[in-house]
Amino acid sequence: MRKERRSITRVWWIVIVTALVSLGFIIGWFAKPTHSNTSNTCASSRYLREFLDEMQADQIREHLRKFTRLPHLAGTEQNLKYAEQFKKEWQEFGLDSVELVPYDVLLSYPNKSQPNYISIVDAQGNEVVKTSLAEPVPEGYEDVSNIVPPYSAFSPKGQPEGDLVYVNYGRTEDFFQLERQMGINVTGKIVIARYGKIFRGNKVKNAILAGATGIIMFSDPADYSAAGVKPYPDGWNLPGGGAQRGNVLNLNGAGDPLTPGYPAKEYTYRSSLEDGVGLPSIPVHPIGYHDAINLLKNMGGQMPPNNWKGALNISYRIGPGFTEDFKTQKVRMNIHTNNQVTRIYNVIGRIRGAVEPDRYVILGGHRDAWVFGAIDPMSGAAVLHETVRSAGRLLSKGWRPRRTIIFASWDAEEFGLLGSTEWAEDNAKLLQDRAVAYINADSAIEGMYTLRVDCTPSLHTMVYDLTKQISSPEEGEEGVSLYDSWHKRDNWTNDRDAPRISKLGSGSDFEAYFIRLGIAAGRARYTKNKKTERYSSYPVYHSVYETFELVDKFYDPSFRRLRAVAQVRGGLIFQLADSQLLPLDANQYAVSLGKYAQNIAQLAQAHPEKIKMYKVSFDSLFSAVANFTDASREFHERLENLNRGDPLQVRIMNDQLMYLERAFIDPLGLPGRPFYRHVIFAPSSHNKYSGESFPGIYDALFDIENSADPEKAWEEVKRQISIATFTVQAAAMTLTPPA
Amino acid sequence: MRKERRSITRVWWIVIVTALVSLGFIIGWFAKPTHSNTSNTCASSRYLREFLDEMQADQIREHLRKFTRLPHLAGTEQNLKYAEQFKKEWQEFGLDSVELVPYDVLLSYPNKSQPNYISIVDAQGNEVVKTSLAEPVPEGYEDVSNIVPPYSAFSPKGQPEGDLVYVNYGRTEDFFQLERQMGINVTGKIVIARYGKIFRGNKVKNAILAGATGIIMFSDPADYSAAGVKPYPDGWNLPGGGAQRGNVLNLNGAGDPLTPGYPAKEYTYRSSLEDGVGLPSIPVHPIGYHDAINLLKNMGGQMPPNNWKGALNISYRIGPGFTEDFKTQKVRMNIHTNNQVTRIYNVIGRIRGAVEPDRYVILGGHRDAWVFGAIDPMSGAAVLHETVRSAGRLLSKGWRPRRTIIFASWDAEEFGLLGSTEWAEDNAKLLQDRAVAYINADSAIEGMYTLRVDCTPSLHTMVYDLTKQISSPEEGEEGVSLYDSWHKRDNWTNDRDAPRISKLGSGSDFEAYFIRLGIAAGRARYTKNKKTERYSSYPVYHSVYETFELVDKFYDPSFRRLRAVAQVRGGLIFQLADSQLLPLDANQYAVSLGKYAQNIAQLAQAHPEKIKMYKVSFDSLFSAVANFTDASREFHERLENLNRGDPLQVRIMNDQLMYLERAFIDPLGLPGRPFYRHVIFAPSSHNKYSGESFPGIYDALFDIENSADPEKAWEEVKRQISIATFTVQAAAMTLTPPA
Repeated sequence: MRKERRSITRVWWIVIVTALVSLGFIIGWFAKPTHSNTSNTCASSRYLREFLDEMQADQIREHLRKFTRLPHLAGTEQNLKYAEQFKKEWQEFGLDSVELVPYDVLLSYPNKSQPNYISIVDAQGNEVVKTSLAEPVPEGYEDVSNIVPPYSAFSPKGQPEGDLVYVNYGRTEDFFQLERQMGINVTGKIVIARYGKIFRGNKVKNAILAGATGIIMFSDPADYSAAGVKPYPDGWNLPGGGAQRGNVLNLNGAGDPLTPGYPAKEYTYRSSLEDGVGLPSIPVHPIGYHDAINLLKNMGGQMPPNNWKGALNISYRIGPGFTEDFKTQKVRMNIHTNNQVTRIYNVIGRIRGAVEPDRYVILGGHRDAWVFGAIDPMSGAAVLHETVRSAGRLLSKGWRPRRTIIFASWDAEEFGLLGSTEWAEDNAKLLQDRAVAYINADSAIEGMYTLRVDCTPSLHTMVYDLTKQISSPEEGEEGVSLYDSWHKRDNWTNDRDAPRISKLGSGSDFEAYFIRLGIAAGRARYTKNKKTERYSSYPVYHSVYETFELVDKFYDPSFRRLRAVAQVRGGLIFQLADSQLLPLDANQYAVSLGKYAQNIAQLAQAHPEKIKMYKVSFDSLFSAVANFTDASREFHERLENLNRGDPLQVRIMNDQLMYLERAFIDPLGLPGRPFYRHVIFAPSSHNKYSGESFPGIYDALFDIENSADPEKAWEEVKRQISIATFTVQAAAMTLTPPA
Repeated sequence: MRKERRSITRVWWIVIVTALVSLGFIIGWFAKPTHSNTSNTCASSRYLREFLDEMQADQIREHLRKFTRLPHLAGTEQNLKYAEQFKKEWQEFGLDSVELVPYDVLLSYPNKSQPNYISIVDAQGNEVVKTSLAEPVPEGYEDVSNIVPPYSAFSPKGQPEGDLVYVNYGRTEDFFQLERQMGINVTGKIVIARYGKIFRGNKVKNAILAGATGIIMFSDPADYSAAGVKPYPDGWNLPGGGAQRGNVLNLNGAGDPLTPGYPAKEYTYRSSLEDGVGLPSIPVHPIGYHDAINLLKNMGGQMPPNNWKGALNISYRIGPGFTEDFKTQKVRMNIHTNNQVTRIYNVIGRIRGAVEPDRYVILGGHRDAWVFGAIDPMSGAAVLHETVRSAGRLLSKGWRPRRTIIFASWDAEEFGLLGSTEWAEDNAKLLQDRAVAYINADSAIEGMYTLRVDCTPSLHTMVYDLTKQISSPEEGEEGVSLYDSWHKRDNWTNDRDAPRISKLGSGSDFEAYFIRLGIAAGRARYTKNKKTERYSSYPVYHSVYETFELVDKFYDPSFRRLRAVAQVRGGLIFQLADSQLLPLDANQYAVSLGKYAQNIAQLAQAHPEKIKMYKVSFDSLFSAVANFTDASREFHERLENLNRGDPLQVRIMNDQLMYLERAFIDPLGLPGRPFYRHVIFAPSSHNKYSGESFPGIYDALFDIENSADPEKAWEEVKRQISIATFTVQAAAMTLTPPA
């Protein structure tokens, strides 16, 4: 009996112990997360708030002040010093690693002992007019050495002499008008073009194609002065003695002209200068409007159409050459600029991702400037610096992003996006496999009106969401979000009731990442009011007058605009790096593709007979866009139902989002432009600055009415429609379930 | 006191309960796997054994019997019927999905009402000799219709007439010898070349470059008869009336000649025939050796060097033209072949991966045959069919691979790898992002001696491991592994004490996957003894005599050789799809790169003065290979210490392994060959069949002593060394820790 009881007790004990252990087991089993990396969305968004709040206007002011005291042209000692300083401070801010990455690229400098200038020469060979050799130095900078005078980088040497022809902006359509309507042939002439509307390299290319022996570019007040604004230093307009520096290459994304497709390392094979990519074959030189008056005022020939007239008090006659009284005078260019392989330095800093170290989010902007570069690029570099500082602060509080963040300070952007392109070439395989997005950090301000964003469609939604979490920097808008401030000022009326977002063109360092490699990309800056301010860029662009004071006195005295831009750029990087699911929106890509397909079809429909005659149809493209739209909708529906606790399922869908932009890349490139490989977005062949959608079709349609071989031209349109169709179709396939 | 005791008891209870629950919690916590997908290596290798054992010789025999009864040329009804039958049976075997994927590609067929032939015409215009219009049909197939007569696919139409010149194998070096040593110019002549040594398309290209107006190719017994073997049907040698069909394109990986770079869909733009890729510009025709004797026996001109003599009882004089007595006779080609855009069908079957459905392992081989194709390709198709059947059996037992397996039956391989290339173009983005490996399944047997494997270096280790788990199919080798049997017969003496593995060249469907897209690839088949059997390919290659009986009677009566090949191909696919860590070995790539770098440097060192004069150095390449070697060693060390319980860490390292092969792809392609993009492996420009390492450098060095512009030629060598250096360096970077 006792024994029995004891054994019953024992059984009870066993039961209780087992029950308790089992209970614990069950709790333990379920308490343990399926994966330790399940994102803590809450913590991430709290850190985002801290990150945005950490960025400070006075810090940005200090960064800008520090890095604009001296000229720091690419390839000079001073720009290396700034690179080293960036490196040192980024290390102090707390990045995991920072390194200088050098390349040896082709740069171009004026000859110090033989200055460049333009002269008017009389019949006896006397130089009766000579353009200025430098810009008047702004107050406070009189003792600064190494200010490079205005020049056109990569101009060949030469002293062409001849009659001048005025070619307006030097656009394709200007040369067409000159040849077809005015009947003027510029072969053997020197052309003079006003700056503005298109990239200067395109003007040079057009002049070469037209047969000119030299090209002069000048800043007309019509294009480089804002109404009611005084010239610098009393205002932010370009003074008459100021001129716009700039490279005149036609690289089409090649990077270093001597090593297209490959990084310019020590061992790298360099082609000869004759085989270099995009180097102009005729002398080029830029001047200010004081000098321009002297060259233009005695011009003869036809009177110009109204839209060829600038704002100078001259006739803007076309030429060729001068009026009767000055008929024997010729213009002579005196150019002694040297091309030179020179070492440049990118600064590359990294924060290692905690969960997916092999996924890269890149924030990059250039550091090299023509002179002080307070706007271009240092307003952007200061913002980048502040972003790095703020990220470092977060790291010290225990935060670490899910993915790896790469910060880049590029060199030699002004010489053709060289630093960023060489690094992209150097790391092409890693970037293709691993890069999630690239955000550009060039000039953060070009006006005082509102935000400007150019980005790939998949970033639209995130840009809107983010700007709702940032405050307007404008006075009197306390409590107003940046989104609302921006929306009010620049509503995207025709497309949707939301702030306007534009397509990416080119002209800055995102180019290789977006257009060559197909990495989702965007840029953001503060801008002018495009409806009322019609000048090109900003007036003192690429002149010696881009000083710290220009920003501090005129563009952003409170530095709150720059702070807002820092928050946008930084916030994008943060969310791309830290969200468990990538904040990329394929549906927005579908919407944009639909719009672009409509637009390009409309462009073709301007030639209804030809379309019928050559059987040109956009049906296949529309059908591909419809498939893409279905695929993206279904993709996002699946994303809603994703088991976020399964790290592989999350990774698989994130990979689909990451590789979506890559799907638009055609390794064969656009016709004649092997390094422009994005079938949806590329600059027009006629203006590097202008981003076109379906650029292959767009270029094929350009001036097709005047084609010498219409059948061949329309065949090319059809071929391009077929390529676009295939590309959109292939992109849709990347969004369907993988098996 | 009692109360105290009671509370002590209570405390004890709490302690015990807590301890027990905690114990349970701890057990539960640690008992739960970090991720439910942690691979069960044991189960996987048990399933591998079952998979290999499932494959049956008599099943393969049955498959081969079933699919070789009728001719099934690409684009014909019969080949579509076989496609439908494959689809139906694959579905029955249990694949998750099977579909027919059509493309509309350029094919080429003889004109049924105007047969092709070659004649000798006398001075009066009488045809005194005419070659045969068809091969004698083998016994048992007399009633079969739709046997296409021997022809050269894609030959243009034409009736060139002229003197014959014998050009040996028509290799680059043969034409050099002809021009430089014999002083014979073939401009305006018809050349006659013997088949063998190189791809026939290269012979045609060489003839065109040399100025010939037509080219005849014949099968010489020296190259298409094995010693002591009787002609079919009494043995497996080529009868005198047999001839080798084949396409004569120079596509260099372009796929469909009219849609290079893009899939040949309904909407796809097609270039004109004049702009088509790789189409020959002169008539081409193949003949057997009975006909060849008639054309060659009266040839005049120089006596041939000894190595130009074949095994026919004729003089093999070079020409041009006939001896004195026949001087007035000319040769005339009568070719009426038509190019025609035709629908073809790939069969694509899938097994969805359980854990990583977005990782693809592909087993693909073609189905189209010139006639019955019992060796080429149906020996491979039968093996593929058996692999699918065995995989289906495994699925029914509850197995599902970690990754997705794709089975492909390609169409129109014989017309330029068209089916496989179009599908690769169609799916390029998906494959680039997701494909782990491609195993080819063309002809599974070409001899009776031992195994032959050509594959990328990273597959070497797996091939060795796997063949140790497969039995030798040879009689008298019971209990001997395939590895040992192979090792004994073909030791890779100079490289290592292991069976020989060769480089991939081209000539089969792996081309687009490996050389264009950079997907790790390999092929395996049973082969002859290369040391003693000197004939090209196998004697009846591409003739009507490739019947079921040929295999059943001579090549593999027990079908155990084909079974062994099935086990190799299937086993590779199985392990690539099911291993938790990808069984790819970067160290083997390092070893091979080192060897290739040595070889190519040695090739250059044949010109010691030039190397000095033009400062050609391979140091950068050697240094890059050393970096790659370090990176791969360290990678595999990290792999040893990997936490296999962390699914993301596993995925990250697998991704590095998967993308390693991709790192060798240059999107710019090899010079003049935009679709050959693999910098380490590509066919020689002089022979599509021959895989060369560092093909860019190899081609630049080819015949450099006779270069017209030596400086430029050596500059190109330097440029290619630079590209190779960069590529190896970039590949090394992909193996380093990602951040």
